[in-house]
Amino acid sequence: MHLKGACFLSRQWGDPHIPDLTILNIPTGTKCYDWEVPEEWEIRDAFIKDTKGNKIVDFKDHNLHVVGYSCPVEKSVTLDELQEHLYSIPQLPDAIPYVTSYYEKNWGFCIEHQKREKLTDGNYFVKIDSSFKKGNLTLGELIINGESEKEIFLSTYICHPSMANNEVSEPAVTAHLAKWLMDLNHRKYSYRIIFIPEIIGSACYLSRNLKKMKKRIIAGFVVTCVGDNNTYSFLPSRDGNTIADKISRHVLKNSTKGFTEYSWLDRGSDERHYCWPGVDLPVVSIMRSKYHEYPEYHTSKDDLNFISEEGLLGSYEVLKKAIVCLENEFTPKVKIMCEPHLSKRGLYAPIGTRGKYTKSGLILDFLSCSDGKHSLLDISNKINVPMWELAEVADLLIKHNLIESLDNHKKQIMF
Amino acid sequence: MHLKGACFLSRQWGDPHIPDLTILNIPTGTKCYDWEVPEEWEIRDAFIKDTKGNKIVDFKDHNLHVVGYSCPVEKSVTLDELQEHLYSIPQLPDAIPYVTSYYEKNWGFCIEHQKREKLTDGNYFVKIDSSFKKGNLTLGELIINGESEKEIFLSTYICHPSMANNEVSEPAVTAHLAKWLMDLNHRKYSYRIIFIPEIIGSACYLSRNLKKMKKRIIAGFVVTCVGDNNTYSFLPSRDGNTIADKISRHVLKNSTKGFTEYSWLDRGSDERHYCWPGVDLPVVSIMRSKYHEYPEYHTSKDDLNFISEEGLLGSYEVLKKAIVCLENEFTPKVKIMCEPHLSKRGLYAPIGTRGKYTKSGLILDFLSCSDGKHSLLDISNKINVPMWELAEVADLLIKHNLIESLDNHKKQIMF
Amino acid sequence: MHLKGACFLSRQWGDPHIPDLTILNIPTGTKCYDWEVPEEWEIRDAFIKDTKGNKIVDFKDHNLHVVGYSCPVEKSVTLDELQEHLYSIPQLPDAIPYVTSYYEKNWGFCIEHQKREKLTDGNYFVKIDSSFKKGNLTLGELIINGESEKEIFLSTYICHPSMANNEVSEPAVTAHLAKWLMDLNHRKYSYRIIFIPEIIGSACYLSRNLKKMKKRIIAGFVVTCVGDNNTYSFLPSRDGNTIADKISRHVLKNSTKGFTEYSWLDRGSDERHYCWPGVDLPVVSIMRSKYHEYPEYHTSKDDLNFISEEGLLGSYEVLKKAIVCLENEFTPKVKIMCEPHLSKRGLYAPIGTRGKYTKSGLILDFLSCSDGKHSLLDISNKINVPMWELAEVADLLIKHNLIESLDNHKKQIMF
Repeated sequence: MHLKGACFLSRQWGDPHIPDLTILNIPTGTKCYDWEVPEEWEIRDAFIKDTKGNKIVDFKDHNLHVVGYSCPVEKSVTLDELQEHLYSIPQLPDAIPYVTSYYEKNWGFCIEHQKREKLTDGNYFVKIDSSFKKGNLTLGELIINGESEKEIFLSTYICHPSMANNEVSEPAVTAHLAKWLMDLNHRKYSYRIIFIPEIIGSACYLSRNLKKMKKRIIAGFVVTCVGDNNTYSFLPSRDGNTIADKISRHVLKNSTKGFTEYSWLDRGSDERHYCWPGVDLPVVSIMRSKYHEYPEYHTSKDDLNFISEEGLLGSYEVLKKAIVCLENEFTPKVKIMCEPHLSKRGLYAPIGTRGKYTKSGLILDFLSCSDGKHSLLDISNKINVPMWELAEVADLLIKHNLIESLDNHKKQIMF
Repeated sequence: MHLKGACFLSRQWGDPHIPDLTILNIPTGTKCYDWEVPEEWEIRDAFIKDTKGNKIVDFKDHNLHVVGYSCPVEKSVTLDELQEHLYSIPQLPDAIPYVTSYYEKNWGFCIEHQKREKLTDGNYFVKIDSSFKKGNLTLGELIINGESEKEIFLSTYICHPSMANNEVSEPAVTAHLAKWLMDLNHRKYSYRIIFIPEIIGSACYLSRNLKKMKKRIIAGFVVTCVGDNNTYSFLPSRDGNTIADKISRHVLKNSTKGFTEYSWLDRGSDERHYCWPGVDLPVVSIMRSKYHEYPEYHTSKDDLNFISEEGLLGSYEVLKKAIVCLENEFTPKVKIMCEPHLSKRGLYAPIGTRGKYTKSGLILDFLSCSDGKHSLLDISNKINVPMWELAEVADLLIKHNLIESLDNHKKQIMF
Repeated sequence: MHLKGACFLSRQWGDPHIPDLTILNIPTGTKCYDWEVPEEWEIRDAFIKDTKGNKIVDFKDHNLHVVGYSCPVEKSVTLDELQEHLYSIPQLPDAIPYVTSYYEKNWGFCIEHQKREKLTDGNYFVKIDSSFKKGNLTLGELIINGESEKEIFLSTYICHPSMANNEVSEPAVTAHLAKWLMDLNHRKYSYRIIFIPEIIGSACYLSRNLKKMKKRIIAGFVVTCVGDNNTYSFLPSRDGNTIADKISRHVLKNSTKGFTEYSWLDRGSDERHYCWPGVDLPVVSIMRSKYHEYPEYHTSKDDLNFISEEGLLGSYEVLKKAIVCLENEFTPKVKIMCEPHLSKRGLYAPIGTRGKYTKSGLILDFLSCSDGKHSLLDISNKINVPMWELAEVADLLIKHNLIESLDNHKKQIMF
């Protein structure tokens, strides 16, 4: 499935292979703050047979049929007993839900509600051929160096079986962002990109890297739910007003047809750790249909039909734009002690021109806000012009020696 | 009348007798900042006789009939002359208004407007048998010690004759709050509770206790107009955003059907002194029908029919809740460097649960906001859960060693 | 025309002659930051003759007919060639637009659009008898001393030929303000008043006076578009919240029937230099119909019919009021440690008075806000009473020794 998703993207964008990905294995039992790396779960087979011996639910048909992390079981049960171990969704009668029980020993099956309703009294035979063993938590880490030690952070997860928007879209888009970043001639920032199992993986990664991450990361994104082509969603950081938050809102406002802003109280992925009090990383999520907010979420209906090339590409472009905005953000300061004489530089609109956003109007508005206290982003928001349009103006004005950068900015990545 | 009001409350709540009340007498002529304790006024009799010698207005029928602090008078007057000394309310023709003239020597009678309109030309005989003498301003003070020297302050007044919402309800509810506070096993804060004549009493009390009060009082309430069962009213402090203001708004928002927030410009009781520039005490009022804002205010119509058991009890409960919120307010800080693993502590909602405010959702939202910069009240407002619900969660989390208190809070008073 | 405008005002207000005006001449070629004083342009004659030798456009009929700063030209041109040098406004077919080409060498004629449309093919003879010579930029400066070295700044311009709202109204109103200021017995502030050609003049003046101006100027006004009787307009400073901004909004809110607040992005006159980053003077504009915002702007239609006595007088009064507010602004602090006893000072409303803004109510609201942290303006806005009403109350309270001024304010200019 991962492969299929990646191929789906690759048809359009080429091979997302990441040669420098480092694979880290962290052994079962390792403490990660309040958490502990669990045993590995192996699932070989799982089915329910009816009284006649027919397999009515079979893990081999769909791997969502078994509750994740189920204990082994092999016995005959009554319908009543079976019902206590079944999960289904009345509102989506033909969907198989995705259910796990990582930390409470249990077993169970997930089935279509319409199938569940047809079950008749009698004895059923259930078998789950699973086992637990000491193993490893596996994660992938990619560090791409830039001019600065400061980092932009991308975190995505690799743990939900057989789902599309809330799984395969995420490492796929992240891998392509990594590929684009590696291919750039120049990066102001370094990039830390990780592929982890959700929650336990981020706790684990943080427990080993927190000090460094707090010092270096200026903005981060949990890449999640980036596959479908519905309205964009935004989940702010706990702080709500970091540079990651502000850039994301600017990009979403200026390059989509509208987006839904959620609150920190709607969080649900690895930002739960990244933004935790004391961790305090500036991490947000730019999504399409947000987890918990679409009916197909965590069901077999979140499949390749739910996502699309347009959806994936749109998310990729918006995340790319947010990164380019971060790379291009700087604080300009005007170098001349009055409104400059544009016409002697050939920057003035010709005579007889009426209307505000002539190029010279935009130049003068930008310059008049370049007081050394407002960044390119601040000014973009103030004069209501997308950052990418203003970045071009900024380049022109640096060239004409009309502004300087207070933070040694050299614009390098083009929008 | 005071006795009747107290009895009215006692039928429901028991005896509000306050054994430890200290009575203070401050002599006539004592300077209190810009004020001076006036002479005592004694009123023995007052009436108006018509031409036929019939008493048409008699102080013995209703003590509001004579203007408070009237000079003695005994003479025959024409109707025109009499009219200059009559007070009535055209909009409430059967009400006797309450009028005083503390600082301007004068005499007068308050009558029903319908009676006034029937007065015919002729001579009237007026007599007010009153006198002024050097005496005392009398006030009651009760200090209830708590764990801390810091205090919560309750101030109520005892000066309006024969009125119910804007008088007897106030010492009655205050006395019952005092009784409840004295009966508590434990109090974080000490309590300063005073019963005073309005305005002159608070100036007098402040002039003797200001330094101590400024150092100790963390929140205070002028207990006024707490008898009727209409919509609650809130008068903020001059600052408008003290802990007293914030707790009051939280309690009113979360435990009433709505309330009217007035502005500092609508003030009218002892907060005029308590919040004065330089005094700056954090004092607010939680009321039912606010003084000046109901037609019966300062008339004979503000009687026992205007107030009710439900009205008194509601005010008592809301003030009690505000006090308990103040006692329970503290700043929590999470003790674990990532979102904690709730299920290993039995705090996680079971698998298959959908929907936000599962207990574990509430626990995690609370913990994620416990960054040491936000108090219980702040977090309650942020996640939109009443403080009393969150206080229970806080207790549970302290017990599980997941949070600590930054201000040595030990929750003691239960909601 | 200037003379006519001044006379127009003088009929009502008397002679605005300013004896102490200093005339400064700055030679062609002088550098003023990014600008340079240009050569003087002399225009003697300009016309277009049609094929029959009739003058169809003649500078002698209206001096707007020639593009300002046109080079000399004398030749026969085809209609097509001529069209490239014509300026007209289709939406105002009988108006002659005002066009200049200061910094790009060019020539042109401005004509009524209805006349332009009647031009037929053929050869036209154009002649502009103009020349450029080394000369001077001329400006007028008036310094009126006050008690303090701190200054209020008025800047107006004298450069648009033959227009009324966007020209002659401006020096006319400014001259009358200067006259009024000079006639005052006492001024808290000094006044710096300049008459300059727009943009180049302010750059030039700043380049010679910036250090002094930054140190001294507490508030300033570009006096522009103050002639017509339409709704007032307000252009804030770049900062948007200087004392000049706050006083202007207060005056406009409390003494006009409403006004339009524009944004810094709508700027267009000398505030472009005065508020430039690094210059940072607190300069705003209070206008009637704002430049760029009325159809007659920069056309022959902005003539004496467009402005009126009422319009000029209204602007004059509003600017005067803003100045008086600035003169009277101070920070009061109450001198008594509780609400004072008004009746012993004869300041209390008599008994039986109901309703809020009795004089004593206003006095007490004002006193209760006089905490030494809020100015007269702040308090006026808070209690929603015009500053001029509150200034009277402040005077009374200073006289009664109830407040002191934290900044040695002595009220001197009466509203």
